[in-house]
Amino acid sequence: MTLKEIVERARQGAKVPIVERDVERALSALLASEDIWRVIDLSQVPVMALVQVLSALKDTGLLDWDGGRLVLTPDGKRFAEAEELGPRLELKCPHCGGRGTTLGPVEEIVEKFKDIAANRPEAIQDYDQGYVTEETTLHRVAFMWSRGDLYGKELIVLGDDDLVSIAAALTRTPKKVVVLEIDQRLVDFIRDVAAKEGLPIEVVQHDLREPLPANIRGKFDTFFCDPTESLRGFVMFAERGIAALRGPGAAGYLGLTHCEASYDKWREIQRFLLDAGAVIAELRDAFHDYVNWPYIDHMRSWPHLPVHRIPGRDEIWYRSALIRVEVVKGPAIEERRYEGDIFADEEAATT
Amino acid sequence: MTLKEIVERARQGAKVPIVERDVERALSALLASEDIWRVIDLSQVPVMALVQVLSALKDTGLLDWDGGRLVLTPDGKRFAEAEELGPRLELKCPHCGGRGTTLGPVEEIVEKFKDIAANRPEAIQDYDQGYVTEETTLHRVAFMWSRGDLYGKELIVLGDDDLVSIAAALTRTPKKVVVLEIDQRLVDFIRDVAAKEGLPIEVVQHDLREPLPANIRGKFDTFFCDPTESLRGFVMFAERGIAALRGPGAAGYLGLTHCEASYDKWREIQRFLLDAGAVIAELRDAFHDYVNWPYIDHMRSWPHLPVHRIPGRDEIWYRSALIRVEVVKGPAIEERRYEGDIFADEEAATT
Repeated sequence: MTLKEIVERARQGAKVPIVERDVERALSALLASEDIWRVIDLSQVPVMALVQVLSALKDTGLLDWDGGRLVLTPDGKRFAEAEELGPRLELKCPHCGGRGTTLGPVEEIVEKFKDIAANRPEAIQDYDQGYVTEETTLHRVAFMWSRGDLYGKELIVLGDDDLVSIAAALTRTPKKVVVLEIDQRLVDFIRDVAAKEGLPIEVVQHDLREPLPANIRGKFDTFFCDPTESLRGFVMFAERGIAALRGPGAAGYLGLTHCEASYDKWREIQRFLLDAGAVIAELRDAFHDYVNWPYIDHMRSWPHLPVHRIPGRDEIWYRSALIRVEVVKGPAIEERRYEGDIFADEEAATT
Repeated sequence: MTLKEIVERARQGAKVPIVERDVERALSALLASEDIWRVIDLSQVPVMALVQVLSALKDTGLLDWDGGRLVLTPDGKRFAEAEELGPRLELKCPHCGGRGTTLGPVEEIVEKFKDIAANRPEAIQDYDQGYVTEETTLHRVAFMWSRGDLYGKELIVLGDDDLVSIAAALTRTPKKVVVLEIDQRLVDFIRDVAAKEGLPIEVVQHDLREPLPANIRGKFDTFFCDPTESLRGFVMFAERGIAALRGPGAAGYLGLTHCEASYDKWREIQRFLLDAGAVIAELRDAFHDYVNWPYIDHMRSWPHLPVHRIPGRDEIWYRSALIRVEVVKGPAIEERRYEGDIFADEEAATT
């Protein structure tokens, strides 16, 4: 029995779209609850698609509901395990009616990650670096886990001064983590940490202006990147990320600020994402907090500021939205080669 | 001095887009802080646009920064008051690193609103009704306030079984609230409450399949709606909402579920929103919790469910995302007349 066979069976007589990821979502929900309403809620699959998936799981002997509970059979549990599916985690903040997110099981790696990050390379302007707080990286990883994009998945990180690869791998849940990074200091740092901690991270030194290496293209379940914010630079990152994904149901994460991007630019970016075959599944503004970088008085907008006070390292003012996209069709990406400066446009403020 | 004059001055020599709403956002930030980094953070205006706005405010005598603090002059404060701008509220949940939202000043109306809502008309299937919890309506209103879409603004609510108009008006911050509602019971209920509480709510009985009344079109700062979820019905609601907005900088809110909408449908909806001239400014999944409706065992998906247990009234399983859009261009809407059933498509589960 394969996911593909189950989805084909679920599609028989169905009048609504059903993809393999819907079967994964249903199984993750069934690993977390046996109650029909909780399973509907947790799965985030349209009800008229979910009922088809549940029937297909029953017909194939993976699920039973004779006692009024939805119970995975021993075969069903083995199947979910073989597919490396974990129970759906909600990670809803209990203090704000579930509108915020919590770290959940990621709490366990907080100390370890902070110890490792204490020795990270400092941000430099050459690559438009500027990293998020450690707390932010951990929340990001928890968010990915809660959305089913981490556990048992293959993750690619495009540029990793935030050390997402390390936090993700420390949870011991992803199947594989690959980093494409241009900065030799970060390549060395992440490789050293991975070797020392026994983490399944592969670091490839790569200039993202070049198309993806052939063995990377179309191979991943999830990408993460925090792009430079010129329109051209952002689209370049998004192109590489989406091109690395397997296809429908695969997901990507990107950061986007107000500081360096008008809503005009946001709209252009969103149009690109839709045209590439993706849907905007979530967009949480100000999810990411950034540590102030040492070159702040050399950034492009500095001479234009009315007041010239250097903020404290942890005096957060630069934030970005977390955008989660999911491939619905294709993806349709024509990978191009980029030349020259990808950082500058008129709205750029920090490079 | 007008907003228009300030924005024209700010645009002189600017190489980035600047709209009137950016001036409003800057002033709201300046009402909340005198520190440059907090003002950048709170304003959510691109830095290279913000510096132009700050200069224009200084040149026109509304702002001063000689002491290293950004201080609105008495003229500046009077101007902000005349424009009915309030200080930017963040309303970040302190327990989840600010990733969730709090009620903030909306706390003060919780009891009153719950008392009023206790006597609301029950949800009926005729109009695909099903209302959110009172807590959800209050969080929604707080969210709108924090995004600058409530205080001093003119708000239109398209279909209001959630009683958003009442919660919004109880905050005593919007300039005007208009409700378009088809259900006579809700029209009467909201009118009665408004009269009794002295709230600035105008209720117009209207079938949204018809284009907006002429005196409504292009007149509002903010719309709210929780559309029916057939693609056709959703687009109809979004068309009416966007057509009611003044233009660039005006904002709209819509709810969208997974239960009745696949990511294919989400993507179609997002394409419509972008084409209409809007940007997706925020998309917070599962922000809205729904109270179970009395016709649950008559809903379309009921016979297809594997288990037929009626959930408790407050056993939440149906949720929707909160989508905030903001007009960037236009808006470009061709308002059409709709005929017949707007509720049904293959993914519909509740009607």
